[in-house]
Amino acid sequence: MKLTSHTNYAIRMLMFCASKQELATVSEIARFYDLPEKFLFKILGGLTTLDLVETVRGRNGGIRLSRPADQIRLGEVVRRVEENFEMAECFKQGEISCPLVATCGMNGALSRALQAFFDVLDEYTIADLIRKEHNINVLLELNLAMQEPLLRH
Amino acid sequence: MKLTSHTNYAIRMLMFCASKQELATVSEIARFYDLPEKFLFKILGGLTTLDLVETVRGRNGGIRLSRPADQIRLGEVVRRVEENFEMAECFKQGEISCPLVATCGMNGALSRALQAFFDVLDEYTIADLIRKEHNINVLLELNLAMQEPLLRH
Repeated sequence: MKLTSHTNYAIRMLMFCASKQELATVSEIARFYDLPEKFLFKILGGLTTLDLVETVRGRNGGIRLSRPADQIRLGEVVRRVEENFEMAECFKQGEISCPLVATCGMNGALSRALQAFFDVLDEYTIADLIRKEHNINVLLELNLAMQEPLLRH
Repeated sequence: MKLTSHTNYAIRMLMFCASKQELATVSEIARFYDLPEKFLFKILGGLTTLDLVETVRGRNGGIRLSRPADQIRLGEVVRRVEENFEMAECFKQGEISCPLVATCGMNGALSRALQAFFDVLDEYTIADLIRKEHNINVLLELNLAMQEPLLRH
């Protein structure tokens, strides 16, 4: 059980935008996290469709959060970006082969557990994720990092 | 984010064994759930290694739970059977490329959410999952179903 890379990187993009406090570009985000630009552009497409990020066009354009970071809950991001939460076959719509589907207690237990998972995520906003002082310092070192592409050591 | 089929079917096998109250066979479990025997044998291997199920050899042999069903918590089963809970790259051991790994709040938020997920699953035992009256009735109809292989409609 794990989140997709898509969701993971979407959260990272939102954190980056929240930390930068001015327009960000996919190119600098890709360099900062050492991730492929192409993949980040795909994720950006999803984030703009969901109205979590907006694009400013033009020569000095870039991207920024559509709302203040303290108004974007982590639970909302994961719920909307992650593709599916079908914990078991019986969460699916349509044909289900399990003969116990109408009566089994597993579905209810997993549904309650998933709700508890989201309840915790909803306690955090994107602003909370970048609140640690050192974390902000790392991001402020960005300008330096941007001048020399990050290399894996 | 979802559990693997392996975990899903492992829970179903445990529920079947708990309901049958005498020795079960992989063959009848496969027919009951309309699942491939080969896959269930693989899952059984894991369940016996984890000492959740034990095998009785001989002509009238079969499998049964190693402990009473009300002493096997769903959280334990999911924790031990599911292959990994690396919610994000930063849950992995070893090399992590994210420059925020030591300071980011996402890891902590996801860890707490995962703990809340397991806390709910730990409220349920395998016995709880099969407690519903109709569910038990479905399983008691097993003998009939066993005489005629179940067909998908």
